[in-house]
Amino acid sequence: MDMLWNGWGDPAKAAPLPDSVTGLLRDLLGVKPRSTPALALEDIRLPGATAGPVALKALALAAGGEEHVRTDAESRIRHTRGKSTPDLLRLRAGDLSDVPQAVVLPASHDEVLAVLRACAAHGLAVVPFGGGTSVVGGLAPERRAFVALDLRRMNGLLDLDPVSRTAVLQPGLRAPEAEALLAAQGFTLGHFPQSFEWATIGGFAAARSSGQASAGYGRFDEMVLGLTLATPEGTIEAGRAPRSAAGPDLRQLILGSEGAFGVITSVTVRIRPLPEVRVYEGWRFASFEAGAAALRRLAQDGPRPTVLRLSDETETLIGLAQPDAIGAGLAQSDAGCQAITGYEGTAEDIARRREQAAAVLRAAGGTLLGAEPGERWAHGRYSAPYLRDALLDAGALAETLETAAFWSRIPDLYTAVRTALTDTLTQAGTPPLVMCHISHVYENGASLYFTVVSAQGEDAVAHWTRAKHAANDAVLAAGGTITHHHGVGTDHRDWYVREAGPLGIEALRAVKRRLDPEGLLNPGVLLPTD
Amino acid sequence: MDMLWNGWGDPAKAAPLPDSVTGLLRDLLGVKPRSTPALALEDIRLPGATAGPVALKALALAAGGEEHVRTDAESRIRHTRGKSTPDLLRLRAGDLSDVPQAVVLPASHDEVLAVLRACAAHGLAVVPFGGGTSVVGGLAPERRAFVALDLRRMNGLLDLDPVSRTAVLQPGLRAPEAEALLAAQGFTLGHFPQSFEWATIGGFAAARSSGQASAGYGRFDEMVLGLTLATPEGTIEAGRAPRSAAGPDLRQLILGSEGAFGVITSVTVRIRPLPEVRVYEGWRFASFEAGAAALRRLAQDGPRPTVLRLSDETETLIGLAQPDAIGAGLAQSDAGCQAITGYEGTAEDIARRREQAAAVLRAAGGTLLGAEPGERWAHGRYSAPYLRDALLDAGALAETLETAAFWSRIPDLYTAVRTALTDTLTQAGTPPLVMCHISHVYENGASLYFTVVSAQGEDAVAHWTRAKHAANDAVLAAGGTITHHHGVGTDHRDWYVREAGPLGIEALRAVKRRLDPEGLLNPGVLLPTD
Repeated sequence: MDMLWNGWGDPAKAAPLPDSVTGLLRDLLGVKPRSTPALALEDIRLPGATAGPVALKALALAAGGEEHVRTDAESRIRHTRGKSTPDLLRLRAGDLSDVPQAVVLPASHDEVLAVLRACAAHGLAVVPFGGGTSVVGGLAPERRAFVALDLRRMNGLLDLDPVSRTAVLQPGLRAPEAEALLAAQGFTLGHFPQSFEWATIGGFAAARSSGQASAGYGRFDEMVLGLTLATPEGTIEAGRAPRSAAGPDLRQLILGSEGAFGVITSVTVRIRPLPEVRVYEGWRFASFEAGAAALRRLAQDGPRPTVLRLSDETETLIGLAQPDAIGAGLAQSDAGCQAITGYEGTAEDIARRREQAAAVLRAAGGTLLGAEPGERWAHGRYSAPYLRDALLDAGALAETLETAAFWSRIPDLYTAVRTALTDTLTQAGTPPLVMCHISHVYENGASLYFTVVSAQGEDAVAHWTRAKHAANDAVLAAGGTITHHHGVGTDHRDWYVREAGPLGIEALRAVKRRLDPEGLLNPGVLLPTD
Repeated sequence: MDMLWNGWGDPAKAAPLPDSVTGLLRDLLGVKPRSTPALALEDIRLPGATAGPVALKALALAAGGEEHVRTDAESRIRHTRGKSTPDLLRLRAGDLSDVPQAVVLPASHDEVLAVLRACAAHGLAVVPFGGGTSVVGGLAPERRAFVALDLRRMNGLLDLDPVSRTAVLQPGLRAPEAEALLAAQGFTLGHFPQSFEWATIGGFAAARSSGQASAGYGRFDEMVLGLTLATPEGTIEAGRAPRSAAGPDLRQLILGSEGAFGVITSVTVRIRPLPEVRVYEGWRFASFEAGAAALRRLAQDGPRPTVLRLSDETETLIGLAQPDAIGAGLAQSDAGCQAITGYEGTAEDIARRREQAAAVLRAAGGTLLGAEPGERWAHGRYSAPYLRDALLDAGALAETLETAAFWSRIPDLYTAVRTALTDTLTQAGTPPLVMCHISHVYENGASLYFTVVSAQGEDAVAHWTRAKHAANDAVLAAGGTITHHHGVGTDHRDWYVREAGPLGIEALRAVKRRLDPEGLLNPGVLLPTD
């Protein structure tokens, strides 16, 4: 099944907006119904392809057959950009300026190497393509003549070592497929980001994904024990031991490289036994500050739940379908801030951790809300992107952004980003609703994930871009990282350059020049072009 | 206090060999008393310095005064090489071919930058020098005209954030000083390698050190949250959040760079509350295999002790002062393999973890030996290098080496390295005693740490080098990493090149060329020179 080409996920799962939200959009945010519905796929006009027959033939040779090089309009459109709100708005408007020349589907590491050679010979840039779920412009290179290198044929479980608890996965495996293959042998990866249903193993590694169960299973970059990278200059294999003192960690140089250094062709991951039991429950805290302090206690002194999240007051009310309370002023609500704790493991282990964690949360002022909020969260954990489609359909703007920082900076970072988003959009005439949650905790800090909903303004993309840039500036000024788990892409690149500093960027550009001397790989993604 | 110039540690702590060991050396290994005792410091003849007065003046200007540039013989000798057995043997023989031209002691990041500029201007290479405890040739560059950049004046605790549980440490802080500064505020770093008494924070980061309590506190590279690197081309600051998706992890590019990319001038680390209680105890397993399986259970399913170690049969007997049993054949001993479990934390937490871990260890065939073996281990945890000095004095060869691999490879790796060492030294006429322990465990693998004792042979350095090279080859052939926590230096470099592969090495050399275009920094350490 293919994902909705100009939206998210399985078209059959598209959900209408709840009435409460429709009212909020109209009354609180002044959202007006769209006058121009999204174009249909068949109405899209594609720019002509410039990749000639010689280049296409070389690609077919590299990928093992003509059937593995696709130039039809639908294939090219389906590989255009990712799934950020600006990406979807552009697609809805029929803007195909970032369309690839062709889609090529190699089936092995050697075929990937051959495709890279063919692209070099014919002056084509290469964009590695997994699930196509980037929300940071990771699939929109700066050079126009490019090929999408779709990894879907490389979707096997190559090895599973039950003693070491490791598995070798191919990059094109989607997360549910990977989980199914591992579950058949009694294991799980434990990586459940919101993009779970569509994203791939290679994409998780390339963009340093982090899943909703990161408190228990860790981030994806913490799960990776080995990597194979195909580059125009050859192959790098990294990871002979879980940990090593043999020089800089090449794995950590490849993780987060977003296709700019090469194509990840296999990933060795840590696996864990399938949990016997999964339990999710809700807690209430009087304020975001009190809830964050409670999460910090668990992150620092344990026991660590598998899932640990905290919504701020606004997100809590929206989640409870009480948006009216927002209009009436948050102070009038007693919903407070809702947290979700989840436990996965053996029954015995869960019983112990849950009891101990409950004692910590109670001591920190929390009130147990029982299983219902937890079950509701678990049921809807992958549905927010569908809701975004419905919001866009209704003429609203809806987007998310995220950051992370050390604990002591979290309060200021929260205020700074919230203020930047609210002020920018209010000054532009579309006062927004800004919600936030903490969804990833560490001993030394946490992530903040913001959701923004407002009216679209005249030019929706430009409208959002102004707010996003103000948020990016606020993130850096308040000491946060420009991205905790979405990645850099082209959207965050200029702020990433500021974060890493000129010499840090130069060190990475030196690596890129050595591995990709002609600058074929995702030009302009992650690193500026020369 | 200065360390013994041609041995280890505090000269006042030098210990004579136990009688049981003397007997073993003579009867089992055929060790003969040395005919030539080590030279005295004042008898050493130094090669003349080639750094002229203009260069020395520039260094003095950079480091804030002439008193911070030392060219006296003792200072130069004390900064010659590290503490591997070949290093000590060469020093004992008066071989000062690796002596620095001068020792320069900058007091700040900016002074380090200035020193690097002065060295560039005068064609001097630079070897960053912390505790001087490298055992892999990390202080012996390939270029002769070099300056030792001693970081001892940069030994402050710059910041401590009790909310985020982070501290900013200067690189020249020795571990005991760092622990004392943190303890004054109720915290610990928890990093206790065998070199603890002498090694420095900067060295831990540069060489990816791992401490004896790594099961509980993690490796040093896992404790590092931020780094500042001074390079000839400027400064890199890495680490705005505990975790980030903002590109490759620059921290992990600097960690393990062993002074080849720059000088680490500050390290932000994770800190933890000082433990209320520390408990160490001993366990017995029938075999190394059974003990390793038990450690794996704890590493994979918990609960994780803070210290977790397992000696093989030979090391167990030596530790129990029963070396006679080795001569009589291991099968005649019922000592089995001894493990140490240690717990640090709150009394309540320890009680729980200890009980649960004991159940796992019992189920895996372990027998609790009580507190005595644990206390004995804790008491002697930093004494092995002193014992080595005594062994060298007695005319024996004694050295250690280490590796790590995924769990399923551990049995073959153990056999392969043991066989390589035993065969090589036996064929050379000096059958060795080879002992091994596991001292670092991970979910997916473990380290192996070998200790070798034999007679010295004709040329002790060449004698050991043959055995060491055979062990290195065996490590790679059996799927291990060339070093788990000692680092690469010059001794492991050629095997490291094989492990990382040609393109991996080229990527790192591209970084080095960008940060150190004139190749001043530790030339030949970590990476081959051009």
